Amino acid sequence: MGNRWGTGRIEAFSDGVFAIALTLLVFDLAVPASSFDDLWRGIAHEWPSYLAYMTSFITIGGLWMAHLAIFRRLQSANATIMRLNLLVLMGVAFLPFPTGLMAKAIRDTNAERAAVVFYGVTLLVISILLRVLWDAIVANPELLDPGVNTDEIKPIRRSATPNIGFYAAAIALALLLPKAAVFGYLAIAIAAVWRARGDESPRHRRAETA
Amino acid sequence: MGNRWGTGRIEAFSDGVFAIALTLLVFDLAVPASSFDDLWRGIAHEWPSYLAYMTSFITIGGLWMAHLAIFRRLQSANATIMRLNLLVLMGVAFLPFPTGLMAKAIRDTNAERAAVVFYGVTLLVISILLRVLWDAIVANPELLDPGVNTDEIKPIRRSATPNIGFYAAAIALALLLPKAAVFGYLAIAIAAVWRARGDESPRHRRAETA
Amino acid sequence: MGNRWGTGRIEAFSDGVFAIALTLLVFDLAVPASSFDDLWRGIAHEWPSYLAYMTSFITIGGLWMAHLAIFRRLQSANATIMRLNLLVLMGVAFLPFPTGLMAKAIRDTNAERAAVVFYGVTLLVISILLRVLWDAIVANPELLDPGVNTDEIKPIRRSATPNIGFYAAAIALALLLPKAAVFGYLAIAIAAVWRARGDESPRHRRAETA
Amino acid sequence: MGNRWGTGRIEAFSDGVFAIALTLLVFDLAVPASSFDDLWRGIAHEWPSYLAYMTSFITIGGLWMAHLAIFRRLQSANATIMRLNLLVLMGVAFLPFPTGLMAKAIRDTNAERAAVVFYGVTLLVISILLRVLWDAIVANPELLDPGVNTDEIKPIRRSATPNIGFYAAAIALALLLPKAAVFGYLAIAIAAVWRARGDESPRHRRAETA
Repeated sequence: MGNRWGTGRIEAFSDGVFAIALTLLVFDLAVPASSFDDLWRGIAHEWPSYLAYMTSFITIGGLWMAHLAIFRRLQSANATIMRLNLLVLMGVAFLPFPTGLMAKAIRDTNAERAAVVFYGVTLLVISILLRVLWDAIVANPELLDPGVNTDEIKPIRRSATPNIGFYAAAIALALLLPKAAVFGYLAIAIAAVWRARGDESPRHRRAETA
Repeated sequence: MGNRWGTGRIEAFSDGVFAIALTLLVFDLAVPASSFDDLWRGIAHEWPSYLAYMTSFITIGGLWMAHLAIFRRLQSANATIMRLNLLVLMGVAFLPFPTGLMAKAIRDTNAERAAVVFYGVTLLVISILLRVLWDAIVANPELLDPGVNTDEIKPIRRSATPNIGFYAAAIALALLLPKAAVFGYLAIAIAAVWRARGDESPRHRRAETA
Repeated sequence: MGNRWGTGRIEAFSDGVFAIALTLLVFDLAVPASSFDDLWRGIAHEWPSYLAYMTSFITIGGLWMAHLAIFRRLQSANATIMRLNLLVLMGVAFLPFPTGLMAKAIRDTNAERAAVVFYGVTLLVISILLRVLWDAIVANPELLDPGVNTDEIKPIRRSATPNIGFYAAAIALALLLPKAAVFGYLAIAIAAVWRARGDESPRHRRAETA
Repeated sequence: MGNRWGTGRIEAFSDGVFAIALTLLVFDLAVPASSFDDLWRGIAHEWPSYLAYMTSFITIGGLWMAHLAIFRRLQSANATIMRLNLLVLMGVAFLPFPTGLMAKAIRDTNAERAAVVFYGVTLLVISILLRVLWDAIVANPELLDPGVNTDEIKPIRRSATPNIGFYAAAIALALLLPKAAVFGYLAIAIAAVWRARGDESPRHRRAETA
């Protein structure tokens, strides 16, 4: 039997998982009714939740843009790509759990370190999976869109690689200064969205090959 | 490296976030089991929740129609558009949080004002982001669909602009009369849906450029 | 300004709302930890939840098929269609609330009647909105796909109309025998799915006009 | 009236349900605040939740790939396919409920067996429904894509069939050794993803027939 999948429904399914994971993050935001006497203070008091929310939202946004960059260059998927993509999505769908944990633990000196490290390790694992996914595509050049320039392959890989190093550094920082590490995760997420690059001219992929 | 994205997956991803944020609002609706002795009264007693639900639902519906109006005229996105769109979606996905807060606080004289102002500020920020997004597109006319008439540019901007003023006015009202301001938000949302305009003839964008 | 929207993103957005509302219903299912001593009994004891779940799932499935039948025949939407579609989606997204209420109230003699009537009224309103939507399309034949046979217009309307009468009857029944009315709602939902009809040959709409 | 549906919106709707059910699983993951004194131990203590999460995530991923394999070969759907597809989706959307039950019950000697059997029966029913769906397609060869080789029909059926036997065996095992059966469910899910096969060359279905 064959070993090729068109990318249309993979992209639609993945977009769904990214969009849902992103939107579910809002459930970690709440102000207890006991703070209603002074609601502004109650809202302000939840800053760790907003920080965790923003970090995870922008992180997932950046991951989605990386996913876009990869699948835009894909003509079709093989079984390895399908499996790796499912693992990437499992990491993304899992992220609301460490996010909520970090938001709750950030002011608890006992729990803070563990929660921030756990969050960072999740992001590190997703980054590694995305890189393995890209390497698996490059190892099978027949999967690539004929229009992909070999000059493009390295920059995409590079744009995934530094994240891995940065996340490892942020996790090390989390062992010493957990709060600082959270801002580190946020900085990595913003940088990932900032560095994302498109094409010279837009490709009209979904209509062509989906 | 290039700087262009096709609009297909951006639209699909954005549609996902709008649809999910809209549908999650239902979780703010509940009747406590203690009201089951007289359930009709219990259901009626939750009117602030229904008001908040309707306001946010129609608001997100109107934002989705504005998003539609913008992306329909977009040939491709650049990095600025991608980032601004992500910020708009962050605002939309965040909205269930102030919605729930407002629904719970609306009968608490201490918390009411803060909750209604906080809700209004969220909508104001989203409106400003949408306007900045449209301005960023107009500043790069090569992003626009060749078929876009320059006469259309102003009306779209105008249809985004009044919301900003209206939201500022509603927030000022919220400082004095919070309950009235909620109806103001609802009126702005209905007006936004009411004023939304399509094309002379439908454009077949997704199939052409996505 | 114009007054036409292509149907591609409307369908994608609507599919999202239908699919999410459907899938969120699962949150009304739970077995309290206190039933873990005899879990089979605990699972069986939740039968009103399963009944409410099935009824709402099949109802939304049937509404989605009716939506499909309508939009398949639509060449483009005007402002009225956009607004009515948003109202239909508001009803669908609201449905998990009366569903959960009905599941919890079904064994409470005080609350049962109100919950079952409230649920039925929600379904009645959605049915009426769908019918108004279809009438608004037929009143503007230029919105219809040129391939639509005028012979098809009546059957579609008829397939929407009886639901309205059936729901009114089921609500009347709910005032006397609430539990029986729930089975009535389920029967109406199954009949709606059962009666749904496609085309003589499949139309390839999304790729053509979206 | 006719009896044919194009597959575009069915696929989009189904993708939505699969993606949402998958992503909602994360709500079963939580570490109680009482474990924050030793958070690593608290995180580790939740292993049954992670096991249940992974099992259901990979199971739904495998079901989605089976759905992909089936609809890729479908030219159009008839009423039977529509109804069976809705039943498959009901099973998938229901899955978070037995998943959460199993995660909570896995360390409770009274509840464990019932929860693991209940979970397995749900998977068995979904597998049977998927097989009935495929048989209903094969029984109406005019629904099949003209490009489908009759040689392909058997392997697809076979790839669905053993799951039924395996699930029956795992349920029998669950009566004796519930914990072992959970690993059995996980193994079946991994095998389903592993065995999934694509085409000789990717088909460009959505753009062509949706």
